[in-house]
Amino acid sequence: MSHDPAAALAESVRHLIDATIRTLADEETITAARHQIDAITTRLTADAIPGWYGVQHGDGMPPAAGNVVIGARNAIAVPLTVEQRDDGGVVTDFTLGAGYEGPAGHVHGGICALILDHVLGAAVHQPGRPAVTGTLTVRYRRPTPLGRPLRAEARIRDSEGSKTFVEGSISHGGDVTVEADGIFLFPKR
Amino acid sequence: MSHDPAAALAESVRHLIDATIRTLADEETITAARHQIDAITTRLTADAIPGWYGVQHGDGMPPAAGNVVIGARNAIAVPLTVEQRDDGGVVTDFTLGAGYEGPAGHVHGGICALILDHVLGAAVHQPGRPAVTGTLTVRYRRPTPLGRPLRAEARIRDSEGSKTFVEGSISHGGDVTVEADGIFLFPKR
Repeated sequence: MSHDPAAALAESVRHLIDATIRTLADEETITAARHQIDAITTRLTADAIPGWYGVQHGDGMPPAAGNVVIGARNAIAVPLTVEQRDDGGVVTDFTLGAGYEGPAGHVHGGICALILDHVLGAAVHQPGRPAVTGTLTVRYRRPTPLGRPLRAEARIRDSEGSKTFVEGSISHGGDVTVEADGIFLFPKR
Repeated sequence: MSHDPAAALAESVRHLIDATIRTLADEETITAARHQIDAITTRLTADAIPGWYGVQHGDGMPPAAGNVVIGARNAIAVPLTVEQRDDGGVVTDFTLGAGYEGPAGHVHGGICALILDHVLGAAVHQPGRPAVTGTLTVRYRRPTPLGRPLRAEARIRDSEGSKTFVEGSISHGGDVTVEADGIFLFPKR
């Protein structure tokens, strides 16, 4: 992994996102924090990539660092570390906190869909040849808890022409909470 | 809208998330920012709700403030403002920046799924009786651009017993980029 100081900054911003949701500090403390953060943002953006991260090729600038699921610079990202398994599938273990809440105490169903879209895609990707999602179907079996260890996994089921059929799930302690099926495509170059 | 100073703080944190992704500041500036942010997080969490936001009933604490899609306190949230239309459907207009990137310059497909899950659900919700997603199917028609005005909308198509069938889309300038169908359920009380 190349050295990117903004990745360590993003990790601190993840804790700040969590603190902003949960704080019971008085208004004076919160307002002072806001002014400090605005000043930091101004300093950080004095020299910045315009618009969005995109693809960066500079020294210490990993290509997917801005990605909302796996990007080390993106404080919205968990970030997930998706690993290849020997059987060709992919797996990632993670825990989600206050920032990903939908129903009280539970992960937002759409966050489960976001993670499954990414992890199913990771089962299809080939080096230098990213796949895109054609159709994703997500079935919710039971609520997915916040603050507990979760696992997302996916594997290719079949392929036919330009289509690859993938299946995956999110589980907690061995119980599947959400299942997904996806059809992924390799865009023509 | 009740007054919650943490909502204004979250808006500043959204800009900080964006700055962290895009910054080209030198390592000294970034590291100094990180130390300042860690100190702010410590002050904000000296008195805080444990774990996650959940449902809060205190003065100035709106119930969904922690929600990852619409929560005013949640810096991960856009946040979306979903409006009821006269025809019974729902609609929300928004623009997504660097924090929501998947393919370079485009919204992550899973973020489209997150937004559609929430907006389709909003078409079904009844006051005091939230619906949960049973199945969500998302079809990707074309890439969804970052930095451009987007619209998400949804409407109930049919209902049968405890199931409500909903359809919706994300569009840009009138062109649909992503379509979704959902089956939503009202949990037994």
